[in-house]
Amino acid sequence: MKGVILTIAPSASIVDVTHEIEKFNIKMGAFILASAAPYFPKGTVHLAVIDPGVGTERRGIVIETNQGYFVGPDNGLLMLAAETQKIIRIHQLTNPKLMLPKISGTFHGRDVFAPAAAYLQRGVKPEEFGLEIKDAVKPEFAQVQQSGNCIIGRVLMVDSFGNIITNISSEKLTKSAKTLLLVNINNHELKLTLKRAYGEVKPAEALALIGSHGFLEIALNQGNAAEKYQAKMDMKITVSQNSR
Amino acid sequence: MKGVILTIAPSASIVDVTHEIEKFNIKMGAFILASAAPYFPKGTVHLAVIDPGVGTERRGIVIETNQGYFVGPDNGLLMLAAETQKIIRIHQLTNPKLMLPKISGTFHGRDVFAPAAAYLQRGVKPEEFGLEIKDAVKPEFAQVQQSGNCIIGRVLMVDSFGNIITNISSEKLTKSAKTLLLVNINNHELKLTLKRAYGEVKPAEALALIGSHGFLEIALNQGNAAEKYQAKMDMKITVSQNSR
Amino acid sequence: MKGVILTIAPSASIVDVTHEIEKFNIKMGAFILASAAPYFPKGTVHLAVIDPGVGTERRGIVIETNQGYFVGPDNGLLMLAAETQKIIRIHQLTNPKLMLPKISGTFHGRDVFAPAAAYLQRGVKPEEFGLEIKDAVKPEFAQVQQSGNCIIGRVLMVDSFGNIITNISSEKLTKSAKTLLLVNINNHELKLTLKRAYGEVKPAEALALIGSHGFLEIALNQGNAAEKYQAKMDMKITVSQNSR
Repeated sequence: MKGVILTIAPSASIVDVTHEIEKFNIKMGAFILASAAPYFPKGTVHLAVIDPGVGTERRGIVIETNQGYFVGPDNGLLMLAAETQKIIRIHQLTNPKLMLPKISGTFHGRDVFAPAAAYLQRGVKPEEFGLEIKDAVKPEFAQVQQSGNCIIGRVLMVDSFGNIITNISSEKLTKSAKTLLLVNINNHELKLTLKRAYGEVKPAEALALIGSHGFLEIALNQGNAAEKYQAKMDMKITVSQNSR
Repeated sequence: MKGVILTIAPSASIVDVTHEIEKFNIKMGAFILASAAPYFPKGTVHLAVIDPGVGTERRGIVIETNQGYFVGPDNGLLMLAAETQKIIRIHQLTNPKLMLPKISGTFHGRDVFAPAAAYLQRGVKPEEFGLEIKDAVKPEFAQVQQSGNCIIGRVLMVDSFGNIITNISSEKLTKSAKTLLLVNINNHELKLTLKRAYGEVKPAEALALIGSHGFLEIALNQGNAAEKYQAKMDMKITVSQNSR
Repeated sequence: MKGVILTIAPSASIVDVTHEIEKFNIKMGAFILASAAPYFPKGTVHLAVIDPGVGTERRGIVIETNQGYFVGPDNGLLMLAAETQKIIRIHQLTNPKLMLPKISGTFHGRDVFAPAAAYLQRGVKPEEFGLEIKDAVKPEFAQVQQSGNCIIGRVLMVDSFGNIITNISSEKLTKSAKTLLLVNINNHELKLTLKRAYGEVKPAEALALIGSHGFLEIALNQGNAAEKYQAKMDMKITVSQNSR
């Protein structure tokens, strides 16, 4: 893919964000992309490929926002990030003149998306790639439920440190160090207070914090929380907040 | 290695193709390099190091082709890719003026190959590195045997998705969706038809396809075929083609 | 982090040295950084983050040397590399104008260190980041003990090939192929001579050599020495040198 990009757009500056998304895990990819995209310069072309449907009828798309472009499969991967910006328009990638001459059935990253990203970097406009669409697939992320002081969310992902990242955003929580959080995950009952950093508790001790992504995170200082509590993606997590 | 390259050739644009070749697996490295090289711009210097013989008498070489350069050990790693292009000449890397001043016995990637790649990028010619040679080592890849409608090949590699990539190239196969392929691998008998994409079968179902590299591939849609069939590199695979 | 750097310093050339340091292993990170830094061009800004204390009182620092800059946490990670160069001055990173506007408690790499590295690349001077300090944390690496012909050191790290890298530097050893090294590691007694390359012994055979980093290394040719001898970081290793 990088060879294709540099062949079409020799001056492109290519940055690897990550190659460590779990296979086929669109949700995790969407989350990482949404976390990273806001920190890139205006005009950046973001290219992402997690593509269980490659070669089937799923569409390839380019999303233009007020901050830049997103290129990839129309399976929800791009939309979480794009929706944090202002979406201007979405076009399909169907113009064969803006693809490699020979398209394999299994590697659209190289044959379709990399050329599209490179042509966008060179100034080609979204409408030249294909028709505008209005029905791009949105990621179906587990919604947070709230009743009284109780919040029911889900594990969004476990990072490589074993930190449990939930889909409970910081706005749902009382950010007071005096508030006791009763957390239930996988039948483990934890009494935690919100910390600002892992190092505020002893090594191996559990804590709750708002992670760098803006979501509630359950972690062990220098330990693996997911392993300790056998937490996995999509698991239910309940949090009740009690002032002390 | 990147530090050395940028010290000698500050304007070089460095692209990582992969750091995930199995240790000492020259064959897998040769295959990945041959897959990626055609997609890079003309004039690219390809640097590859899988080097079980580092520090022994094996030679370092630069291969000039009509498309660019290949730099690395003379152990077969470079030749599969170079032979898909037109080889112009091959020179040894023996000129100490084009190496780092102090050569370690174990890290020629940094001390010999990285400087050579950087000097090539700056325009130094192959003959300045050392004598021309005509006997570069060629990779001994298992050859495909064919008798009647039966093809006997080998597993070239298993990729990180568990897809089984064989050395049976697409030219050997009848590309008709009506042709039934009887595949035997590790005593597993599979009846498959050629698909164009993983998503054309149900999740966990087996399929055959011509992979993005141009070789027959046995895969499970969203599953791990190598695990299911305990397939490993170099295993024999037989394919018979029957029209239905 | 790369997005932040390119936003502040669009012309920066970013090189990944490694993302494979063990979690929280400051010693291993310090060692890799000290191994790689000397090979980068003069003026390079080295950014390193292994940061168990993120969000606590540990300081962020920039070290200016006669060769370039080092940016990261003040926990010993940077000093091993910086001390191989000539340290000119060390300043704290406390100026909020040279950080991202919103600092998370857990990701100073993105919010503090990446902006600092980018501003240094643009020419901002160390004194603009904060006060000069004289008490930066030094890494407490196990010291080598020596009595007569016997050296007692430690395993500094095990690399991804299973090679056992010790903290015994080449100056401590008689570099003669005639000198017999009696090595004891984890109660395994090995009789070795110093080789210049892995390939000088048969596959799976043990050897001693001065690795590319300049330290004594115990390895198996094409095998995993750490696995065979159950060697782990920080283990004691004794070496006695006997002329034959």
